[in-house]
Formats: sequence, C-alpha cells, structure tokens
Amino acid sequence: MDAIVKFELTKEFLERFSEALQARNDAFIRSSLEGVNPADISSILEEFSAEECKYIFELLPVEIDSEILNELNEDVLEDFLVHFSSKEIAQYVELMDSDDAADVLYQMPPKQREEVIGFLENEDRAQNILDLLQYEEDVAGGLMAKELVKANENWTVKECIDEIRMQAENVEKIYSVYVVDDHEKLLGKVDLKKIILSNDSVRVADIFDDDLVSVETYLEGVEVANLMQKYDFDAVPVVNARHKLVGRITIDDIVDVITETADEERQLMTGVSSDVEEDDTVWAISRARLPWLIIGMAGGVLGAQFMGLFREDIILIPAVAFFIPLITATGGNVGIQSSSIVVQTLASSNIFIDTMGKRLLKVFLVAIVNGVILSLMVFGLIIFINKDQALAMTVSLALLSVVLLASFMGTVTPLVLNRLGVNPALASGPFITTTNDLLGLAVYFSVAHVLYNL
Amino acid sequence: MDAIVKFELTKEFLERFSEALQARNDAFIRSSLEGVNPADISSILEEFSAEECKYIFELLPVEIDSEILNELNEDVLEDFLVHFSSKEIAQYVELMDSDDAADVLYQMPPKQREEVIGFLENEDRAQNILDLLQYEEDVAGGLMAKELVKANENWTVKECIDEIRMQAENVEKIYSVYVVDDHEKLLGKVDLKKIILSNDSVRVADIFDDDLVSVETYLEGVEVANLMQKYDFDAVPVVNARHKLVGRITIDDIVDVITETADEERQLMTGVSSDVEEDDTVWAISRARLPWLIIGMAGGVLGAQFMGLFREDIILIPAVAFFIPLITATGGNVGIQSSSIVVQTLASSNIFIDTMGKRLLKVFLVAIVNGVILSLMVFGLIIFINKDQALAMTVSLALLSVVLLASFMGTVTPLVLNRLGVNPALASGPFITTTNDLLGLAVYFSVAHVLYNL
Repeated sequence: MDAIVKFELTKEFLERFSEALQARNDAFIRSSLEGVNPADISSILEEFSAEECKYIFELLPVEIDSEILNELNEDVLEDFLVHFSSKEIAQYVELMDSDDAADVLYQMPPKQREEVIGFLENEDRAQNILDLLQYEEDVAGGLMAKELVKANENWTVKECIDEIRMQAENVEKIYSVYVVDDHEKLLGKVDLKKIILSNDSVRVADIFDDDLVSVETYLEGVEVANLMQKYDFDAVPVVNARHKLVGRITIDDIVDVITETADEERQLMTGVSSDVEEDDTVWAISRARLPWLIIGMAGGVLGAQFMGLFREDIILIPAVAFFIPLITATGGNVGIQSSSIVVQTLASSNIFIDTMGKRLLKVFLVAIVNGVILSLMVFGLIIFINKDQALAMTVSLALLSVVLLASFMGTVTPLVLNRLGVNPALASGPFITTTNDLLGLAVYFSVAHVLYNL
Repeated sequence: MDAIVKFELTKEFLERFSEALQARNDAFIRSSLEGVNPADISSILEEFSAEECKYIFELLPVEIDSEILNELNEDVLEDFLVHFSSKEIAQYVELMDSDDAADVLYQMPPKQREEVIGFLENEDRAQNILDLLQYEEDVAGGLMAKELVKANENWTVKECIDEIRMQAENVEKIYSVYVVDDHEKLLGKVDLKKIILSNDSVRVADIFDDDLVSVETYLEGVEVANLMQKYDFDAVPVVNARHKLVGRITIDDIVDVITETADEERQLMTGVSSDVEEDDTVWAISRARLPWLIIGMAGGVLGAQFMGLFREDIILIPAVAFFIPLITATGGNVGIQSSSIVVQTLASSNIFIDTMGKRLLKVFLVAIVNGVILSLMVFGLIIFINKDQALAMTVSLALLSVVLLASFMGTVTPLVLNRLGVNPALASGPFITTTNDLLGLAVYFSVAHVLYNL
C-alpha cells in the first residue's frame, strides 16, 4: 500500500518549505523534494521568485532539474532562463528529449539559443534540436520529437529488440516500432505487443501493419490533434515531403495543444489579453484586463457622441432611450452565438461544410426565425405594458434589423479572420463586440428617427 | 508508399455514395467502405438518416459495425439505437471494450439496457459492463475500462508474457502490466518496454515500478484529466476504496473529457443551449439559441420599465441616455472577465488558492485599479468632447461603481455556483449577464438622479 504514494502539496508544506528556503536549510529542501515527481516540484517552484528557484535548482540532481524545466509554465520558464548562463542551460538541455529541448530553446532569444546548442556535447542531439527549430512551434514539425525506434523491414524481431534496447534510454515511451525501407521511407509499424508475442526469428516484413496514418511536417498542430483524437492514436509518425520518417508526435504533446487552444479561445472571447490566473499580482491582472475595457469604453464614448445627433428625438420620446440596453444586449448575444458556432465548426474542420452561399442563406434563415420570434414577443410586451403602438413598432423593427445584422457580422467576421490567418475566436472578442454595439445603435436610432418623423 | 493510404472524405465521394445508397447498390457500398477506418465511416453515417445508416450497417461485418457505434457522436447514437432491437445491439456490444459498451448503454433507457445485457453471451463481459454501469458517466469509475493486463508480483516475466498473449485479443492497447498482490491490491506496474528487455525467468517483483499514481473510482473525470495531463500519463489504474485494482483509464478517453469540458464551457458562455453545429437544420440552430436571446430580451424590457422611473431626468438631461451603452457594456465586460478568471482557476484546481477573504480583497483591488483608470479616462473624454462637468462627474462615478459591482458579481457568482455543484462557467452565461446589465442601469440612474438633484 505505502508503495503507492501521491505527493500532496499542502499550504502547510509550502509554508514550511518557504521557511527552510529563507534559512537556507539545504538538508530540509533536499530531503523534502526527494522522490517527488518533477511535475509537482515545478508547481512548488512557480510559487517562488526566479532567484529562489535557482537556489533550489542547484541543490537538486541535474536530471531532476532538466525534467522540472520541461514542466514549467512557458511564462515562468522565460523569466527563469534569464538567470542561467548558456552553459548551465546546455547542461539541462543535454538530458531532454529533442522536442522538449526545442520548447525550452523557443523561449530564448535566437542568439542565446545558438550559444546553448554550441555547448551541447552530444553532436546528434544538437543536430536533432537544430532540425526541430527550423519549424514553427505549432506545426507537426515543431511538435514532434526526433527520438523514436525504427526498424528496417528486413530485420528480424530479434534485431528490433536489440534496437529497442539501444534506444531504451533515449526514447521514454515506446508505443510502436516504425518500419522503414532502405531509403528510410515509412512503410508501417509494429506494436510492442506484437513484438512481445512474436518469435525472435520472425522477419519484420511479415508482421508489420501497413495501415498507418502519418502526418507531414507542415500540418497545423490543431489538425494533428483532430486526427489523433478522431482515430484514438497514442502517437503519430511525421514524414517529410519525400515520405521519409523524420519524427514522432505523442499524445501527451497533443493534449497540451488541445488545452492551449481552448485557453487561447477563452482569452480571446473574454478579452483577457494574456495568461493570468487568480494568484497573479493585482497589477498583472489589471493590465491583462484593461485593453478590452478601454476598447469597450472608447466604443461607448463614440456611441454617446453618435446618439447626441438624436438629442431631439430623445427629448421628444424619452421611451426610445429606455430600450437602448435591449437593442445592444440582443445584438451582442446574437453576434457571440453566431461567431461561436462558426468557430466551433471551423475547429472541428468538418469537411461537409456547405459552400459560402448556402451557409449565408442558412445564417439568414436562422436570423429571420429568431428575429421574428423575438420581435413579436417584444412587440406584444410593449403593447401590453407601455401601451404605445409607435414605440412597439420602432423597437421591434429595430430589433429585427439588429438580429439580422449581428448574425451576418457574427458569421462573416470569423470566416474573414480565418481566411486572413487570424484566430477566428477573436470575432467573439472586444473589438468586434464593440463594433456590433455601435452598428446596433445606428440601426435603432435610424429606425426610430424615420418612424417617428413619418 | 501506397501502403500508407489515408481515406479522404470528399463531397464527390459523398454524392456518389448517396446515389449508390438510393439505388441500393450494395456492391458499391461494400467495396467503397472496405478497409476504411470505422471513425471515417461514422463521419459518413452522420450525414444520413437513421434508416439509411441501418441499411449500411447490415452490409458491413459486425466487427466494423461495433467499432462504428463507438465512434458515433452521442446525439446521433441515441437516435440510431432506437432502430435496433436489443438483440441486435447485444451482438455489437459483445465485441466492444467494457467502457465503450457502457457508453453505448448509457444512451438507452434502463429497461432496454438490461435486455441488452441479458442477451450477451459472454458472462464475464456482462458482469464487467454491469460493474461499470453502477458509476456516474463522468467519474473515474464510469470512464475506466475493465480490460487490462495484470500480473501477480510472484510471477516471472514469462508468465506475464503468457498473460499478455491470453489478453491480447481483449485489450487493444497495452501500455503496462499492472502488478498486484495475492489480494488483488495494486502494487505497481511494469512497462512493456521493460518486459521486452527482461529475461523470461526474472521475477516481476524484482523489476516492477512501485512509483505509480492511481485514482479512486469516484474521482471526477475533469480531475483525472488534470492529473494525467500534469504527469503525462498514457493510462492510469483505477482502484476501489480498499485499493483493489478495478480498471484502467486510457488517455484517449481523457482527451474526449478535455474536449467535452471545453465545449460545454463554450456553450454555457455563449448561451447556445445544446450541441449544434453549422450543418444542423435551421430550426435546430434557432431553438438552441433562442433561450438566451429570450432571457436577454426579457431583461431588456425589464430594464426599460425601470428606466421609465427616470423619464423626467432623461427629458431634462438627455445626455445621460447617451452613456447607457457605455455603462452596460463595461459592466458586462468586467463581469465576464472576472468570472472567466475564476472559472479558469477553479478548473486548474490550483491548490494555492488564497482564502476567501484574501481573494475578495484582491478582486476589489483589481476593480479599483481598473475602475479608477477607466473613470479618469471617461471623465477626461467627456470634459474634452462634451464640455459638461456634471455629466462627466455622473458618468465616471457611475462607471466606477459599476466596475466594482460587476467585479464582485463576476467573482462571487461562479464561486457560489461551484459550491452548489453547478458548472461555474454558467456565470458567464445569459442569466448572470442580464442581471449585471440591470444592476448597472440601477447604479447609473441612481447616481445620475442624486447628482443632478443636488
């Protein structure tokens, strides 16, 4: 039973640890972190300053440090690396898988990157990392690791096992052995399970599975994620344009891609401009949130000036002003709903997406249905409560127009952004929401002005 | 090269396929689906009616059908199962992993569920599925599969391999062999890699890794996901309260949990009340979107009645009306930002969350900083553009109050919802947004009324 211990990170532990750190009680620090999973140590380190972390780092074995670096949050990592010399970083990078090493190097200025690579003792490793750094961080080439186990189709199972033995130290997780021909072209794979169950003398060519999906280096990370999720893959081989096996992407990296994509979308939708969590400083949280608020505020002031043009209408029929929030809120709601449906469809890369004309027609029909239902309800409510037919007419007609307009904007904006290579989730964010508000007001006051002056 | 073929689902293929289906061209249907991955076939089936799907099902081998059922989207699956008899379903369920079988059975009424289980020929399988159905769908017990390979600590590697051979058919993906004692208590695991590299006569007790994290059956799916993501696990063993090994959760199921959680959050935030995609019918999309729009509309009408109380103020100073959108938009933005930061923090289950008092103090400080900055900017802008000091005072004071109020509401609402066991992301959704709008208006008009009547 006590063989299976899960480290529990409590507030009490953190306080004791913090005291020990102040007192430079090295023995306590070392013993309390011994055997703790590096992922847990990285959670602890994120609570301390970079200098304190460096102190802790120096007390721990270099292998553990190297694993901790992998686990650190990107922002923390970036602050952290500044405190180390290129030579020190090289010592940790030396022990990492190539993809993790590349992730660390991506956080450094290009000049320091090269310095670090220059300090690496293992030439192959340096070359592997250089290969990976050629790719963008978020395409298959940037996500893959160079470490994998491959076998020539002419080998026997025995030779495969020898290769696994040789690679065992470099390749942490082996799901399959990839099978290549004499020109390194990918032919298929053999699962570990099959290797265990096969006789040593069997030829790889006779047992390998050629029904294998591979991805090319330039494929977007999100698409790799969709693919691996759809087919329930643990790992997917990466090939270059000439179908040569160049790397392998494992599911744990893809899980990170999925989570980051969802976080990024949430940030765009809520207008919080960088990765903040509740335990960041007051100023960091304020700063991350201000840009959207300022855009919204500027939009509001602009809207006020616009409404100033209709001052006389408002004095004459103040009830028109009462329905301003109804109009802007509905426009906002319809816009966000429309854009989020488009964003979701784009993300799931459904190949059955209708052509643009058909799509816009459908958006228009949904908008008509919802707009008519809402307008009729509002019309009835205003007649019933305010007993003012002209007002009911104005508000419901404006509402219908705003629903149509916001649906159109909410659908077209993410599609245009996507075409421009910008994340379409931005369409649910501050800038577009503010624009929608202004358009909604323009429609409302124009309708009111025309109807009341008939 | 041509050994590695990825099936491409084109519009042209779909049209040809659809024609073949109309013409009952069985030979074409069979040959065009031969060798196609069941995940791809399920994408095709989702384009056809349940009756047509049933027709296709009957043309395919039962093993393929069973895999397709696993891959179908839950909503489609539910409609689909209605067209099959319990006996037919049992035939497919017979071939599934226990967790997939349970997922299918969850979509049926309890009575039919029991019928299906009654038809199963394999007693063990029936028992496994019954075991799983005891658990909620979204806790570790409901996510796990009963199929796994386990070895007694006293076995040799040879005996392990024999067990793998026996289980090879039942357990699709073997990452590790779990090691148990004579009472089935979980002790640790041996990776497949280690088994391959070890001599047949070595005892399991000498090579197994006891540094193993397990989860208990009642742990929430989201927490299992956090754990597996944090430690980069491919699979995690599930134990009961007495630490007996009862199942295993694999990363592919967890990827689904992560995606579903993100989708659910997005739906709550955008007020789209059920799973809709762009290719659903106009009425399905309209219906999914209407509830939020109606809540927002009702809030707008209520707000209008409230503002009616201040009719005289608006006639006297119409400029007050001009800034209504500024006030409601800022309140909405601040509220959504605050709640999304809380939701994100709750989801990452950061254990270093400050106590409630400290947390509210921080929220208050952030609100003060942002509120003061925004208010000063608005004050300056109104003085500069409108040259009206009383108006500038009213709007900026009301804005400050609204920012404080919306921050408070945005922070407290998700915490309260979470405490009540409701998804805290609901706090960014329609009901709360509408309430915030109304509160903002109340604050604004109260401030205006007081300041102008001084």
